[in-house]
Amino acid sequence: MAEGRVVLEKLAAAGRHPVRSVLLAEARVEGLADVLAHLPAGVPVYAASQAVMDAIVGFPIHRGILAVGERTPQNPQALLAALPAASTVVALSAIANHDNMGGIFRNAAAFGADAVLLDADCCDPLYRKAIRVSVGAALTIPFAVLPRGHDLVQTLAGAGFETIALSPRGEVELHDLVPAPRTAALFGAEGPGLAGELLARTRSVRIAMAGGFDSLNVATTSGIVLHHLAAARRQPL
Amino acid sequence: MAEGRVVLEKLAAAGRHPVRSVLLAEARVEGLADVLAHLPAGVPVYAASQAVMDAIVGFPIHRGILAVGERTPQNPQALLAALPAASTVVALSAIANHDNMGGIFRNAAAFGADAVLLDADCCDPLYRKAIRVSVGAALTIPFAVLPRGHDLVQTLAGAGFETIALSPRGEVELHDLVPAPRTAALFGAEGPGLAGELLARTRSVRIAMAGGFDSLNVATTSGIVLHHLAAARRQPL
Repeated sequence: MAEGRVVLEKLAAAGRHPVRSVLLAEARVEGLADVLAHLPAGVPVYAASQAVMDAIVGFPIHRGILAVGERTPQNPQALLAALPAASTVVALSAIANHDNMGGIFRNAAAFGADAVLLDADCCDPLYRKAIRVSVGAALTIPFAVLPRGHDLVQTLAGAGFETIALSPRGEVELHDLVPAPRTAALFGAEGPGLAGELLARTRSVRIAMAGGFDSLNVATTSGIVLHHLAAARRQPL
Repeated sequence: MAEGRVVLEKLAAAGRHPVRSVLLAEARVEGLADVLAHLPAGVPVYAASQAVMDAIVGFPIHRGILAVGERTPQNPQALLAALPAASTVVALSAIANHDNMGGIFRNAAAFGADAVLLDADCCDPLYRKAIRVSVGAALTIPFAVLPRGHDLVQTLAGAGFETIALSPRGEVELHDLVPAPRTAALFGAEGPGLAGELLARTRSVRIAMAGGFDSLNVATTSGIVLHHLAAARRQPL
């Protein structure tokens, strides 16, 4: 479910999840002509008064722009295999908060991550709020969800990815990390963090902090890590 | 207004804003004995049933822990003058969203920033939600608000601070920035960003991004910048 102009633009432009239909407040139709012109032929565009739209949606939707896309699930192994020889994957374990999920996708897009791999305990990146917080990045970045029982680190290793994970006792400070050509950055839920068993099979990286390990939000942490990986790839240390 | 155990602990431990009183759901009193023992003598601690507490607060407050602190305003010039010779200040212009404000304070605490300086267009870091999102950092980090008409960059320069500001056309990529001993990092509201006039009097720094300049949330941006400043201070490039 895409809300607002920017997200609708990304849904239409990415083409990853086909647009099924668009619902607009009448006052919005004219201003969206350029976006609507990029929709594939045959996609129905419905217009309604703001009052009718609010009644359909169930709350006052001030943006006045909604679209339904069709979920296109990806196979995890096929997704990883198709990535370039040098690529960055974001791996997520048990991220259950849609704000954090959206924030992580937003950062993944900002720093050019190639794909996101989720375990079965993550919330849905295509939930309405996650899409909105991601500013549409959840609709543009390829992602796949591992079936329950499958292992993130093992799946990544099978595709030639070294997985880095944050730990207060990490071997190397993030700022000094030289990433492997295929690097996956693993993030777990705030509070409990990553399971020790998962951490043990990764390259551990620390972020030196004044306030202890739980003092960063996981979306912010993803921004810090992905900024470093992008910078380190551009200009090796 | 402090909510929850962690924030109450920080309010009491920081001592920056004196605790005026504490209101607890009866079921919480026993588990908080250690925190209450650290309150100054004479601070009243009220206990009430959850129902009475909900009625006082106006919504179901599941944490069952509230405290009132007294705001202790700081003079901006005095605050800056008292900082160490090498220090990091976070400067905020027109940050109007309490989630972002809380997130920025959280990151400032995580990376050991020495103080926060706000202009008159910022929202209140001591608003209940900002405190909660900051995980109490808004109560521990010294901050001061400039009176309207005073200039952030000029005030900082007067105290010997070089101010860095992000711009897509910045002279140096953040990852390569060697900070001055006294460095202030300036962040503005998302969307409009910083006023050009303000930017012109700063050292401009860029964060190379795949998705364009508006693709990072301002709280995440502060985490990325403060992580770099902390790392660069520990180990000069």
